[in-house]
Amino acid sequence: MANLINRRQLTIEWGQCDPAGIVYNPHFFEFFDWGTWTLFELALGVKPSELGKMFGIIGIPLVDAGARFLAPAKFGDVVEIASQVSAFRRSSFDVTHRISVGGTLAVEGSETRVWAVRDPADPSRIKARPIPPEVTAKFQM
Amino acid sequence: MANLINRRQLTIEWGQCDPAGIVYNPHFFEFFDWGTWTLFELALGVKPSELGKMFGIIGIPLVDAGARFLAPAKFGDVVEIASQVSAFRRSSFDVTHRISVGGTLAVEGSETRVWAVRDPADPSRIKARPIPPEVTAKFQM
Amino acid sequence: MANLINRRQLTIEWGQCDPAGIVYNPHFFEFFDWGTWTLFELALGVKPSELGKMFGIIGIPLVDAGARFLAPAKFGDVVEIASQVSAFRRSSFDVTHRISVGGTLAVEGSETRVWAVRDPADPSRIKARPIPPEVTAKFQM
Amino acid sequence: MANLINRRQLTIEWGQCDPAGIVYNPHFFEFFDWGTWTLFELALGVKPSELGKMFGIIGIPLVDAGARFLAPAKFGDVVEIASQVSAFRRSSFDVTHRISVGGTLAVEGSETRVWAVRDPADPSRIKARPIPPEVTAKFQM
Repeated sequence: MANLINRRQLTIEWGQCDPAGIVYNPHFFEFFDWGTWTLFELALGVKPSELGKMFGIIGIPLVDAGARFLAPAKFGDVVEIASQVSAFRRSSFDVTHRISVGGTLAVEGSETRVWAVRDPADPSRIKARPIPPEVTAKFQM
Repeated sequence: MANLINRRQLTIEWGQCDPAGIVYNPHFFEFFDWGTWTLFELALGVKPSELGKMFGIIGIPLVDAGARFLAPAKFGDVVEIASQVSAFRRSSFDVTHRISVGGTLAVEGSETRVWAVRDPADPSRIKARPIPPEVTAKFQM
Repeated sequence: MANLINRRQLTIEWGQCDPAGIVYNPHFFEFFDWGTWTLFELALGVKPSELGKMFGIIGIPLVDAGARFLAPAKFGDVVEIASQVSAFRRSSFDVTHRISVGGTLAVEGSETRVWAVRDPADPSRIKARPIPPEVTAKFQM
Repeated sequence: MANLINRRQLTIEWGQCDPAGIVYNPHFFEFFDWGTWTLFELALGVKPSELGKMFGIIGIPLVDAGARFLAPAKFGDVVEIASQVSAFRRSSFDVTHRISVGGTLAVEGSETRVWAVRDPADPSRIKARPIPPEVTAKFQM
């Protein structure tokens, strides 16, 4: 497990809550996405929007995502998202996200993403590529 | 006023409603956007995603939007969006949207959009261009 | 596996796509949510907004969700969501969602939900309750 | 014009941008909503989620909203939202929002909202009520 953890706080907004008064679940997957982008910014020191240019990739597309919802988050709650790469493989990696409300774990999520380039043989497709070791090294503190 | 009207029905979803149990207002601006795209599809017989290619434009970007909220829409309500170009000018146009619930007008909206191309002098900018008369003609029944 | 399948078609909207031109992943979890609501409407013949009243529950809250992203969906694509209860347990159940584009499976998702009532001992909390057999029976064709 | 201004910074997220690479317009109306809630928090010293309880209202529902889009905001841009009550009337008020990117005004918006209670004669409806002078006073610095 890469030990660099990105912690981000945000306040739950009115429009993120549903008629039950709690966060509508797809928003948590946005939070995961934001958590990953800012984790990469923390690790690599480059704005997420510059990531593609810097490494010659088209991005880090998501291939798998999941979440367990343990406790609700409500309008006005301050939540913390702690994001960490839990595994680097040759050309893909897993990110674990823990969302807590007042110190209590509310949502646990995971994403699997791919280090992707445009396929030279067919530019309409993408291809996984080995993650450079200088990238993975940055996630070790 | 161009007399072609696009009518589109949709059912209000759980996740589009806020803790007050009614549609969170930004979703109505999504409905306006969808209404305009499908109005153009109806008028021009071309899928919205093909609009740019067909007319050599980069799109029809929004420069102004507004709405009056007269009555709420709730989870499960079937709403109708009636969209109509209310004015064509040289290189811009207005679209009026009327959203009704059970026959009662609930939201009245308007958008002003521009017929836009990439600026040949600076490709990072856009430029308004005259709307082709064969386009405006299609909005008259 | 309950053999009733709800099939729902929708057209991918401009605002559901990200700068890569493909559906931003959290929207798929909205699609799953919509798929489950309309599956219940199909099975039980009751509008989703009436579900709570009819069965004395506060809802069917989500406790687990996951998705595998196999192929992208783009602006203008017509997608089909096929939703089916893959397992009923005493007080919880799983729903499987298959999203296809032009007949090709693009996203495979699953949700675990609970049949929930307000806890009589503490109305701020919820409690799982056995799913009535007359409910589960309706998901068999 | 009430001279208290709430300034809030946020970074544009990947999922808030559309295939043109710029913020999808309905998100600006979310930003206006967030701007109003945090302006009220700044003025009244009470969390938005407590506003109803404190003043015996059901909320401050939106009756009118509008925006002019002057320049785009892109993924990674840091934007500032400056929100200010531009007019207090007997039972309604206007909020003006100015969104700037790098010091340049990008979006100018306005909202009209109502100070609302549940109608005692019919609890399914809402009624405008006079805004307490101790509330309006708090928006003067």
